[in-house]
Amino acid sequence: MGLGDVARVVESIVYTPTYTLLGVDYRGRVVYQTMEGGFNSIWAYDPATGERRRLVSATVHWPGEVSLDKRRVPFTRDVGRGREAQVIGFVDLEKDEEVVVENMEPVRVLGFRDTGSEIAFAGASADRISLYVYRRGRVEEVLRLDSYAHVSDFDGRLVVGSGNLRKDPRSSEVFVYDARTGEMRVATPREGSVNESPVITSGGRVLFETNAYTGDAKELAFYDPATGEFQRLGYPGSDYEAYGPVEHLFYREFGGRLFVVGKKNGRSRLFVDGRAVETPPGTVVNAYPHGERVYFTYTSLRRPTGIYAYEEGSVREVLVSKLPPEVEEAFGEVDFVVARSPDGVEVPTFVFKSRRPRREFVVYVHGGPWWETADEWNTRVAPLVALGFNVVAPNFRGSTGYGERFRLMDIGDPGGGDLLDVEAATRWGLEAGLGERAFIWGYSYGGYMTLWAMTRRPELYKCGVAGAPVADWAEMYELSDAVFREFIDILFDKKRELWRERSPSTYAEDLKSPLAIVQPQNDSRTPLQPVLHFVEKLMKAGKTFELHVIPDIGHAITRPDKLAQVLVYAANFLDKCSQL
Amino acid sequence: MGLGDVARVVESIVYTPTYTLLGVDYRGRVVYQTMEGGFNSIWAYDPATGERRRLVSATVHWPGEVSLDKRRVPFTRDVGRGREAQVIGFVDLEKDEEVVVENMEPVRVLGFRDTGSEIAFAGASADRISLYVYRRGRVEEVLRLDSYAHVSDFDGRLVVGSGNLRKDPRSSEVFVYDARTGEMRVATPREGSVNESPVITSGGRVLFETNAYTGDAKELAFYDPATGEFQRLGYPGSDYEAYGPVEHLFYREFGGRLFVVGKKNGRSRLFVDGRAVETPPGTVVNAYPHGERVYFTYTSLRRPTGIYAYEEGSVREVLVSKLPPEVEEAFGEVDFVVARSPDGVEVPTFVFKSRRPRREFVVYVHGGPWWETADEWNTRVAPLVALGFNVVAPNFRGSTGYGERFRLMDIGDPGGGDLLDVEAATRWGLEAGLGERAFIWGYSYGGYMTLWAMTRRPELYKCGVAGAPVADWAEMYELSDAVFREFIDILFDKKRELWRERSPSTYAEDLKSPLAIVQPQNDSRTPLQPVLHFVEKLMKAGKTFELHVIPDIGHAITRPDKLAQVLVYAANFLDKCSQL
Repeated sequence: MGLGDVARVVESIVYTPTYTLLGVDYRGRVVYQTMEGGFNSIWAYDPATGERRRLVSATVHWPGEVSLDKRRVPFTRDVGRGREAQVIGFVDLEKDEEVVVENMEPVRVLGFRDTGSEIAFAGASADRISLYVYRRGRVEEVLRLDSYAHVSDFDGRLVVGSGNLRKDPRSSEVFVYDARTGEMRVATPREGSVNESPVITSGGRVLFETNAYTGDAKELAFYDPATGEFQRLGYPGSDYEAYGPVEHLFYREFGGRLFVVGKKNGRSRLFVDGRAVETPPGTVVNAYPHGERVYFTYTSLRRPTGIYAYEEGSVREVLVSKLPPEVEEAFGEVDFVVARSPDGVEVPTFVFKSRRPRREFVVYVHGGPWWETADEWNTRVAPLVALGFNVVAPNFRGSTGYGERFRLMDIGDPGGGDLLDVEAATRWGLEAGLGERAFIWGYSYGGYMTLWAMTRRPELYKCGVAGAPVADWAEMYELSDAVFREFIDILFDKKRELWRERSPSTYAEDLKSPLAIVQPQNDSRTPLQPVLHFVEKLMKAGKTFELHVIPDIGHAITRPDKLAQVLVYAANFLDKCSQL
Repeated sequence: MGLGDVARVVESIVYTPTYTLLGVDYRGRVVYQTMEGGFNSIWAYDPATGERRRLVSATVHWPGEVSLDKRRVPFTRDVGRGREAQVIGFVDLEKDEEVVVENMEPVRVLGFRDTGSEIAFAGASADRISLYVYRRGRVEEVLRLDSYAHVSDFDGRLVVGSGNLRKDPRSSEVFVYDARTGEMRVATPREGSVNESPVITSGGRVLFETNAYTGDAKELAFYDPATGEFQRLGYPGSDYEAYGPVEHLFYREFGGRLFVVGKKNGRSRLFVDGRAVETPPGTVVNAYPHGERVYFTYTSLRRPTGIYAYEEGSVREVLVSKLPPEVEEAFGEVDFVVARSPDGVEVPTFVFKSRRPRREFVVYVHGGPWWETADEWNTRVAPLVALGFNVVAPNFRGSTGYGERFRLMDIGDPGGGDLLDVEAATRWGLEAGLGERAFIWGYSYGGYMTLWAMTRRPELYKCGVAGAPVADWAEMYELSDAVFREFIDILFDKKRELWRERSPSTYAEDLKSPLAIVQPQNDSRTPLQPVLHFVEKLMKAGKTFELHVIPDIGHAITRPDKLAQVLVYAANFLDKCSQL
């Protein structure tokens, strides 16, 4: 294929818009996020008139949920050309007017929530992590946290969230900050347990996810800040209990009803007060009711994220895009398999097959590492399948979605056990006949793992593409802000002596097969500089590599044209490798 | 436009094959060079049967002329993945068998000529430049030259060529090496004059190009090695004299007739014994007779290089490709204009107009600097015109084709007067209404000039793409082989103190507009390392840039897929800039 043919396929996928719910406004409009129209943005769809309207004038970095009073939708805007130096903004849904807070120091925003008159958020700069409240046109730094934490809810008085507040790399605590009294409470049902993403429910109780009771799977539990008591959410005999989720994508109380999206094995289901809503297999992302109608976001590896409505026992499409037929036709089955690592660890793995597979398959390694490849639309996977690659996506130790024990196995050991797992899934793919040769590709931590696998398992991978990779942990640390320094310390369990040993740059000479790197210019998570230095090592060692540095974007890509660039370069390189 | 749309247009042009004559073999077959079929290669076309046959199994770096006895065609092959580390090879045209000389030390080949049983060539390695002869399966280093020189002809006894043999940056001498006696003679009609590319004619006289008599335009003259005498080629009253060429693209004696391609103002004409052959306006590259038929290579800015035949007073197509209609339709007129530099220098400039021009035009700067943009097919220009850019291509001081005085003006002053000329052509374009904004693009020295103009005239150029540029003269010198060290010393007239002052890396902070760099990984002329260091400076200064490093290619690109990559990235960047 030529570059143009590859680009056509990739672009046809990238420009197929996805739609993600942000809530329903006071007028009953569906407020949603999409990159339709050329940039990441917030739109409103009026089911009564069919009108769709873009509510922002420029790229949104991070769209938030519709405010508590349903009259605003908040967002952040990157003013750092990709560096994630963000200011706060919102759309007034009464006037459909955009307001951007110009008079604040930009920060890396770590979660925010809008009541309709005030916005609470956590933010990180080069040297600090703090809680902020925006009210009456001004942003105020209300509390210095000095540990990683994000804000997940706010009711005008209480700011709640969670984070690494005890400085234990393996635990996470809930916090409740009283914006009136200034009192900060850090809560955990059990020291050392993982507790995350609290939301405020009626009666002032806080609902959050915790592994305190199981030691592994995350349940939902209430915390009452008034009494300090904890209570597990029980739905005995319910659909929810029967399903037995391992974690939760979403939980909110609306009009006294509890909407919960429970998840396991890379798929999720929506439960209202414990009762399952009939949705197709795949991933329900979130759900917002409007009267008796429930809007929800749904996606799968084969279906672009879209908005659906459940009403009177049936589901219908609200905002859903169609893939080009030639892409749809190339998509084969999606399998969920388990590979076994040499040390016995089971590696849950998604396999997305192409109907006309090539001789090579691609191992796609997700980012994070505390993330996963689930049964949801993935623009880093779909184009490869459309281009004829079977794709194997291992959820290596460290991945979310399979219990906290599994996730925490990566801490103190990045590039260790997780590499064994990626390798195990690769060998599984070879043995299962998914292809004669294995290629590898990933972005962010998946980019790290690609460089790592290409240098540490140079015989196994015949071609690789690393997007926004970590090439050198020590150099990345030097260039990081407060949050990413903490991220590295948590990931390595503060064993800094491992940095060199676990950095691809230490093994540049061991590369054997063609490697491409695609790197955002202004990436403030996995920065460009160590990538340039790594490339210089490859150059001096006479290795074969391709490099693309894409201007004016950062780690999170918020424009389809830029996303297409990254993915075209990646796919084109894999395509060319498969012609060798 | 999307990347896919840009790629489609660029690829449709790059994959339109061009055909360049290498001669006619003993059987009457037309032997030619083309990238048709996926790589630079040598083919034979039999006019009797219509059969076309590829004669080589793998990429040819540099195809040579059919041998004197018409039974071989020589070539070089790069065994350095683009580093231009070449070995010699040939095709036996009797058996159509390819022979590659495996047992030689690869060198940068500087001209070669095959008699049919022996091949003479000049070659450079890291530390030396020498003459070599290949005979009876072995390569022998016959003479160490230690100055830049290339071989242009060989008759089995005499090896002739020219080069910088007096170490005067402004002169060039002819040499005649007697392979039997080992005697080396360096000849010039006038010390300090420019004398180039001798060929051996009947009677043992050598025909070469010289400015010795005019001090400016290059004429043809004979040198008789037996007597040491010089004699200007005179054609009083001829078409040739009336035409008054400034230089010559080709001159050979065939069957007692002298075939000369004379050139001026970027176009050329074929003369046989002084009489003009009727060819269309544009560039005749070379010509080889077969009986009464004369095959010739013809091209223009609007027409891909192809092979034609002149016979019985008329011209017909032999091997000519058609452009896609949508490309052809986008091509507007080609103008030849003169811009005036602030210091009065006249800058001959080609203007290639698009039928549907954009708001921006592109200044295309040729490489060299001792080269030019002439009225000949140019894959670095044509795609831009097809994409809607008017293109202005100045032949700045230092360019060939307008007399030696003009060419030598660049020596000792690269980045000085030539920048004024590029700037003058740019201002001419703005004033002539070719566009509201100027972009700039070039490859090699044109890449240097792009970086240079973007940092030294940051207000004038709103976007630029530098292909394989010089970012830092000192660092390039350090990394260069014997030839390119000498090239830099000639270009700078040995004023090494100018290196820093004339290097874009010194002014990285002055960049204002978006810049892309496209760089071959294994470029041994303008190497990658200084580009990486330049990019690091841009990064630290927070500039907007895009970078593409393309694997396993060198400065001269010998595969259409790789050429397409370079040109797609360049064109896509310019396309995106024009959307800003």
